[in-house]
Amino acid sequence: MAQEDVATVVEKSVTFTAYKPQLIVESQKVGDAVAFYKAVFGAEETGHSLYPKRKADQELPHLVSAELNLAGTTVLVSDVSVNSGSNANKGSMPAILETDDVEAAVAKAVGAGAVKVEEEVEGEEGGVKGKVTDPFGFTWIFVSPAKKNENDENKEV
Amino acid sequence: MAQEDVATVVEKSVTFTAYKPQLIVESQKVGDAVAFYKAVFGAEETGHSLYPKRKADQELPHLVSAELNLAGTTVLVSDVSVNSGSNANKGSMPAILETDDVEAAVAKAVGAGAVKVEEEVEGEEGGVKGKVTDPFGFTWIFVSPAKKNENDENKEV
Repeated sequence: MAQEDVATVVEKSVTFTAYKPQLIVESQKVGDAVAFYKAVFGAEETGHSLYPKRKADQELPHLVSAELNLAGTTVLVSDVSVNSGSNANKGSMPAILETDDVEAAVAKAVGAGAVKVEEEVEGEEGGVKGKVTDPFGFTWIFVSPAKKNENDENKEV
Repeated sequence: MAQEDVATVVEKSVTFTAYKPQLIVESQKVGDAVAFYKAVFGAEETGHSLYPKRKADQELPHLVSAELNLAGTTVLVSDVSVNSGSNANKGSMPAILETDDVEAAVAKAVGAGAVKVEEEVEGEEGGVKGKVTDPFGFTWIFVSPAKKNENDENKEV
């Protein structure tokens, strides 16, 4: 984005419609984590994606991510390996914010002191649209609300 | 709690009624963080606590914690110094879960493989009731719903 465009975008009003914590877990541990949150917190699974590239000799497909309803909040449990292009670490919990304007959200955050994080490689899940780290050390991922539906699909091939 | 009690407690049905991310920020940075989240995400402040022990020569009281409505989710921004008795670090984001039975929640989580974290020292905010780290590296803080009101009070003295 050219520098002159940024100033315009910053002035835009941006609406944030949903907050979803993303729980990044160790590779191939999404299933275990989902089982734990179901058993302990009574979480309900509302969607998931499977590894599309699993080996033929593997009996069980691995979950690459799962969306849970946990105490009324939508929580996304994700395998750290699908976040390999980013600075995500297992045990970290970036916050996903649904917004009507991802670019404006990034520009607004950066204008207020946040640092833009390298765009993730487009992955099986459609990729992340915008990602910033705020001055207090927290990572925020901006996605458009339409993205949500992709997590409801069963991506098994 | 005696060992035989744990087994009984684990069988109990525990209800979780709210999920609140807690954003632990550097000492005396709660005000800055709140200003940032208001400016960038349009967050609304729904409650806060002030440092009760501030020095007389300080003009402005510091926020020790603030409760925000951020994209429909209640987020608690807290000063790392009020979490000094715990393993909390700035930039970390434990999840607060409101539950009708804190003890049962801890027992259930521990029974499923979570590790109980040392109880925090009772602080200005009334302290934390139960805290566990799950097998995937995430920290969960269990509080009773009544606790919520304490954050709405202005603790200035």
